[in-house]
Amino acid sequence: MQDNTILIKNVLILNPNNFGNSPQDVLIKNDLIYEISDKIEEENVDKIIDGSEKLLLPGFINTHTHLSMTLFRGLADDLSLDEWLNDNIWPIEANLNEYYCYIGALLGAVELIKSGTTTFSDMYFYMEDVAKAVEKSGLRAALSYGMIDFGDEEKRKSEIETNLQLFKNCNNSADGRIKVFFGPHSPYTASEELLKEVRRLADENDIRIHIHVSETQKEINDSIDEKGMRPFEYLDSIGFLGPDVVCAHSVWLSDEEIEIIKKHDVKISHNPCSNMKLASGIAPISKLLENDICVGIGTDGASSNNNLDLIEELKTASLLQKVSTLDPKVLTSDEALAIGTINGARVLGLEDEIGSVEVGKKADLILIDTNCANMVPDSSNLTSNVIYSANGSNVDTTICNGQILMENKKLTTLDEQDIYKKAKEAIDELKKAI
Amino acid sequence: MQDNTILIKNVLILNPNNFGNSPQDVLIKNDLIYEISDKIEEENVDKIIDGSEKLLLPGFINTHTHLSMTLFRGLADDLSLDEWLNDNIWPIEANLNEYYCYIGALLGAVELIKSGTTTFSDMYFYMEDVAKAVEKSGLRAALSYGMIDFGDEEKRKSEIETNLQLFKNCNNSADGRIKVFFGPHSPYTASEELLKEVRRLADENDIRIHIHVSETQKEINDSIDEKGMRPFEYLDSIGFLGPDVVCAHSVWLSDEEIEIIKKHDVKISHNPCSNMKLASGIAPISKLLENDICVGIGTDGASSNNNLDLIEELKTASLLQKVSTLDPKVLTSDEALAIGTINGARVLGLEDEIGSVEVGKKADLILIDTNCANMVPDSSNLTSNVIYSANGSNVDTTICNGQILMENKKLTTLDEQDIYKKAKEAIDELKKAI
Repeated sequence: MQDNTILIKNVLILNPNNFGNSPQDVLIKNDLIYEISDKIEEENVDKIIDGSEKLLLPGFINTHTHLSMTLFRGLADDLSLDEWLNDNIWPIEANLNEYYCYIGALLGAVELIKSGTTTFSDMYFYMEDVAKAVEKSGLRAALSYGMIDFGDEEKRKSEIETNLQLFKNCNNSADGRIKVFFGPHSPYTASEELLKEVRRLADENDIRIHIHVSETQKEINDSIDEKGMRPFEYLDSIGFLGPDVVCAHSVWLSDEEIEIIKKHDVKISHNPCSNMKLASGIAPISKLLENDICVGIGTDGASSNNNLDLIEELKTASLLQKVSTLDPKVLTSDEALAIGTINGARVLGLEDEIGSVEVGKKADLILIDTNCANMVPDSSNLTSNVIYSANGSNVDTTICNGQILMENKKLTTLDEQDIYKKAKEAIDELKKAI
Repeated sequence: MQDNTILIKNVLILNPNNFGNSPQDVLIKNDLIYEISDKIEEENVDKIIDGSEKLLLPGFINTHTHLSMTLFRGLADDLSLDEWLNDNIWPIEANLNEYYCYIGALLGAVELIKSGTTTFSDMYFYMEDVAKAVEKSGLRAALSYGMIDFGDEEKRKSEIETNLQLFKNCNNSADGRIKVFFGPHSPYTASEELLKEVRRLADENDIRIHIHVSETQKEINDSIDEKGMRPFEYLDSIGFLGPDVVCAHSVWLSDEEIEIIKKHDVKISHNPCSNMKLASGIAPISKLLENDICVGIGTDGASSNNNLDLIEELKTASLLQKVSTLDPKVLTSDEALAIGTINGARVLGLEDEIGSVEVGKKADLILIDTNCANMVPDSSNLTSNVIYSANGSNVDTTICNGQILMENKKLTTLDEQDIYKKAKEAIDELKKAI
């Protein structure tokens, strides 16, 4: 097979914690970043992209979402978590099927590509259909099936079997863009037996784990009432935790639990907009960072956010830490950029492949247009402009695994108008079915 | 003079607290909304805009900013207020002049128009040059000169004279789009004598007042130390407060101060992103709303935000109230929309002219494109989509005083490339001059 090459000319590279001041040329060969230097010859290159007046960044990494829930955007807002979930989300989820989850995932994929996210970690239902959307879109993903047994043994077996089937059918599929994780939903919906079995199978098969932990104060109180321990203490006590476990939310943490997280090198996915919108609470992210705990960013599902814009999420993360600690120096724009890229890669165990613009890494890259009012002036700190002033709409070009998914804001792999139409029909049908 | 008419066809109107489900036609005649009905004849109309797949909203109203500071975007971040102001902002402001403030205001105007703001309330220096930028851009503005005397009598006289000159030269200029307010900077930079003289002149000339009050905890502590009273208690004690006073920030408020604000019908401009970024604190907005106090939204200057996107600001306002009260039902998307439009108009005393889409009001209108990933699906709550999922880039068309300032994302009154170039040159010169 002949090599496929893309040359991005004359572009400022904005890497996490490493910003170059002089424009570079970047050569992509097939799925990889092949060369970065002052001047690369244009001969025999299949495609040239002019990078002047643009910034080149690693694609953003969304470490916690439920992509198909993009269908439920705006369905139910300004409600308590109970009313939101019991009265609105669960009734409509009861009628989900393969097709709806596929369409919802495609709608989410359009939004991810448009706002510069190239990798997302998803936990939901009908994940083999989400995998089809990933395959089609060209994105990279870590997919897990949300396992819930509420202590029922039959259910437990079938849930684990479903996640294992997903692993067998989809892990390393789509040219290696898809990794499959285990997705035990949470310590309060998955039994101790399920969690222990997941831990055993994860070790046996080298499969990472994605779980919700300590999202709300109620969850903590219930855990103390039922188990005599806080959630991370409980997960530690049953031997569940390890460096391969990604915990979403992790809002309510005692100092002892932070020690536990640190000891096991557990990864945290921070979801500030969702935690704010559902009034769950403020995660102590600056304290986690002080403890060298690896934190990535996530949007959660669009139904509690209500978008998938990681730039907006990173700004919110930074500002929320500053105001909640009354310290304007915490979670700087440089730290936010790292959280959105290389730290996200570490959260997913993909730091050797993605998360920075480096020779030998996968060509997961985005271009941000700096010729826009909200990116001017550009003489001070460009990381600041990206994190504090930009939003996803400033992303101009999105490349994943060496394939251009969007160029000059035009999608190449997905038919957005067709997806919008089908998504609208899908939610209308789902609402009628309640 | 012949009438100038614009007909917006077949558009869903999203008014604060009043959303119509069937598309309407809206006829603009000169500066006014002339007719709204199911079907308006197209004959003899100068310009027709297709409103299908769009939402028509009143233009957003930014009740507190320093537009020329857009030049300082990204200049100094992640710093304490003291370091930010003393070591970065004040040294560079020392070299400002008429031209720099004009260019900075034009850069800000581009950003406002692009993100759907049609009216802004500004307090800064060289305000007659800001007025020129308002005139040129076609925006509507309430302009005040930031008066600081630190107790110096000479300075006091010249500061008041500068603001009065601004009033004489610019009030009701630009086809009535410019109103001039008094801008005593704050209770800690303006003396009691200045504040009392402003109050007297405001009553005498029917001029409104724009002031910063209670932004940081330090300001409260200093006020108690120096005056034996909290800032609003002090302002009440000297007879300064009234329904014509707009107080920006108002973060740290005792229950007694909330009573004072309510008693005098003082208007509040809430600036959540700036308050978060500078770690000033969280204003008790939901408590103010419970007390029927009129609250508008503001971005503050771009140097502490770092953009002028009011949709982002309204989302942040809502989410911040939810998480800080741990109540997801406070500051709903409907309330946020009202804060960004009709309440902003009330804050500025312009509620009879702007803030809603109504026959007889000024044609200050924006169109939001709903044919975008982050606005799909659209079958539930469109206010939610606008506040929680959109951002300023979803705005497609901006009209102010019956003049189209942007159509299909193309500016009509300003040359953005020329402004970007001059803004970059201006900040480079200012940085060299330090």
